Amino acid sequence: MSGQAAINLAGSSDAPRVAPAALAAFVKRAFEAAGLPSADAEIAAGLMVEADLRGSDTHGVIRLPLYLRRLKAGGINARPHIHIVEERPATALVDGDNGMGHLVMRFAAMTAIEKAKAAGVAWVGARMSNHAGPAALYAMMPLAHDMIGIYLAVGSNNHLPPWGSTENLLGTNPIAIAIPAQDEAPVVLDMAPTVAAFGKVRLKMQRGEELPAGWMIGRDGKPLTDPKRAEQGLLLPIGDYKGYGLSLMVGLLAGALNQAAFGRDVVDFVKEQGKATNTGHAIVALSVDAFAPAALFKRQVDAAVRVMRGAERLPGVERIWLPGEQSHRKRQDRTKNGIPVPKPLRESLDAAARELAIAPLG
Amino acid sequence: MSGQAAINLAGSSDAPRVAPAALAAFVKRAFEAAGLPSADAEIAAGLMVEADLRGSDTHGVIRLPLYLRRLKAGGINARPHIHIVEERPATALVDGDNGMGHLVMRFAAMTAIEKAKAAGVAWVGARMSNHAGPAALYAMMPLAHDMIGIYLAVGSNNHLPPWGSTENLLGTNPIAIAIPAQDEAPVVLDMAPTVAAFGKVRLKMQRGEELPAGWMIGRDGKPLTDPKRAEQGLLLPIGDYKGYGLSLMVGLLAGALNQAAFGRDVVDFVKEQGKATNTGHAIVALSVDAFAPAALFKRQVDAAVRVMRGAERLPGVERIWLPGEQSHRKRQDRTKNGIPVPKPLRESLDAAARELAIAPLG
Repeated sequence: MSGQAAINLAGSSDAPRVAPAALAAFVKRAFEAAGLPSADAEIAAGLMVEADLRGSDTHGVIRLPLYLRRLKAGGINARPHIHIVEERPATALVDGDNGMGHLVMRFAAMTAIEKAKAAGVAWVGARMSNHAGPAALYAMMPLAHDMIGIYLAVGSNNHLPPWGSTENLLGTNPIAIAIPAQDEAPVVLDMAPTVAAFGKVRLKMQRGEELPAGWMIGRDGKPLTDPKRAEQGLLLPIGDYKGYGLSLMVGLLAGALNQAAFGRDVVDFVKEQGKATNTGHAIVALSVDAFAPAALFKRQVDAAVRVMRGAERLPGVERIWLPGEQSHRKRQDRTKNGIPVPKPLRESLDAAARELAIAPLG
Repeated sequence: MSGQAAINLAGSSDAPRVAPAALAAFVKRAFEAAGLPSADAEIAAGLMVEADLRGSDTHGVIRLPLYLRRLKAGGINARPHIHIVEERPATALVDGDNGMGHLVMRFAAMTAIEKAKAAGVAWVGARMSNHAGPAALYAMMPLAHDMIGIYLAVGSNNHLPPWGSTENLLGTNPIAIAIPAQDEAPVVLDMAPTVAAFGKVRLKMQRGEELPAGWMIGRDGKPLTDPKRAEQGLLLPIGDYKGYGLSLMVGLLAGALNQAAFGRDVVDFVKEQGKATNTGHAIVALSVDAFAPAALFKRQVDAAVRVMRGAERLPGVERIWLPGEQSHRKRQDRTKNGIPVPKPLRESLDAAARELAIAPLG
């Protein structure tokens, strides 16, 4: 199953397209059959399809079979009591009761937004959660309220050592920041502090392709490019010790501070399907109006976007992209033309339908 | 003057040492002579010496002559009315009235700490500020209150283009995060989103040494290693587009949101000494107790630090460092043995003393 997230997506643009609503309806059916209350099934399905709409093909519906296996094995609680365990005017700590990460983080984001309306900013941490899909999903939730969103999470397995070490004690802990614009797409950064995501490594492993130098090193400290050795390799952080520092800080802020798993306590959610991961996240909602009129700020963001996009280009560069702009374009295309469902993904969804005795994806 | 920050610090460990109190007293005298109220002069001097104590040799007392020139030229206001212009329970926007950045950011940090005591977290932005020294200074202010600190700033000149561009529209906008520990040193990350700080480039320029590949590219997109061409070069961001994204986000959060300078509006504080820079910063104070008992969390941070430090090492690696640990050691050494003042720095401080007709550094 560890390769599930890396089903070959090459040529996914040529794959048959499925209407987002049909895909969401299928995922909802699957979660209902797995024991989730109907309203929760609908929310989780909607967020997973939203991930696919934005082009996060490795973090959306492709993960459904894994989530279903974890639900069946008891590694995810289908009917959690998601609740606030500690609260201040501008903070909250949410216990997810081992529910689906999407449900926990939507609850946390809504809590942060409500609190930020009164306080100007809010920071909400979560523990006893699970993998929640792409980080951008949650950082973007405050946007509709003219708020900036910041999201941090502890990754669901460790592939990064402290700088100078050979032990994978840290995750590709993602950071996402979303800033609203007026007519332009919101500026949305969603990044892991490693040069390459492990999903990209898995793809190269499956295809038997050499890894580019700079992605991984071996335990001998030398560049590791042989895909057959990648499982034993160490991801390289961006900026050497800087990426290590970022991953460590996200781990402390989203994990340790919330009494969620961090470091050696991180449970590999692929390999230990029956075990609670105690995944930690944090979300910040920051009200633009607490600093400047939102309409003014959003026009300024538009202007900044256009200055960056219009800047003089290096030879051979066709376009300067803003963070999140390509995902925004994919979303426009896929909303209109459907979400590509390559054959291996279709087969895995069909298999899930058979196992759950539900109607397959139409 | 653009080389001031890069006075050759090589061998600074062999340089004559000066007692921190004597250095602070000298800087205070200089600021008083430049028109600062005595209490403000003392605060700014203390923070600049603190930077030197922690080994931030390019961001501490070495900047005094530049600050003095800016004060004289009207580029910094010696007697600012630093005040809150917009406020919510957990946010504030501070107008620094073009005062010394150290004073503005100390005010902002204290405001954030006070608000976080009641609200759990606070986010304070600042505009009409100035260069404030190393980012870690402010991120660390909440530590004494069992709070986590996060600091963002718009750099005081632009050396980084958007990814794919040849125009230096972005700064080496720093991010600092400080997390309290119990018996271990606090974990303090202080990083710019570029592979190399421009100060390091200036040092190579002064010494006529080749730049390592990966630090800069030229406008032709090719690696730039010739120190004579560095002034026209483009710094490379960490993680390619990721570092660009981080710099952009910090610029929007610490600059645009506060109606401070960002992008093309950034004023080069070295080259335009008579002009207000409208520097923007942001500081977040996050109360540990709003999530977990501080004593428990700090013990967990200690444990995490020891796990990282004790991890298996790559061949040839003598020690795994935690972010901020080397600065902490320098501080211990320099508190006891004094701050190294190399000859060029001593000469520039002596020149300032003559110009201001104050007693020189003893």
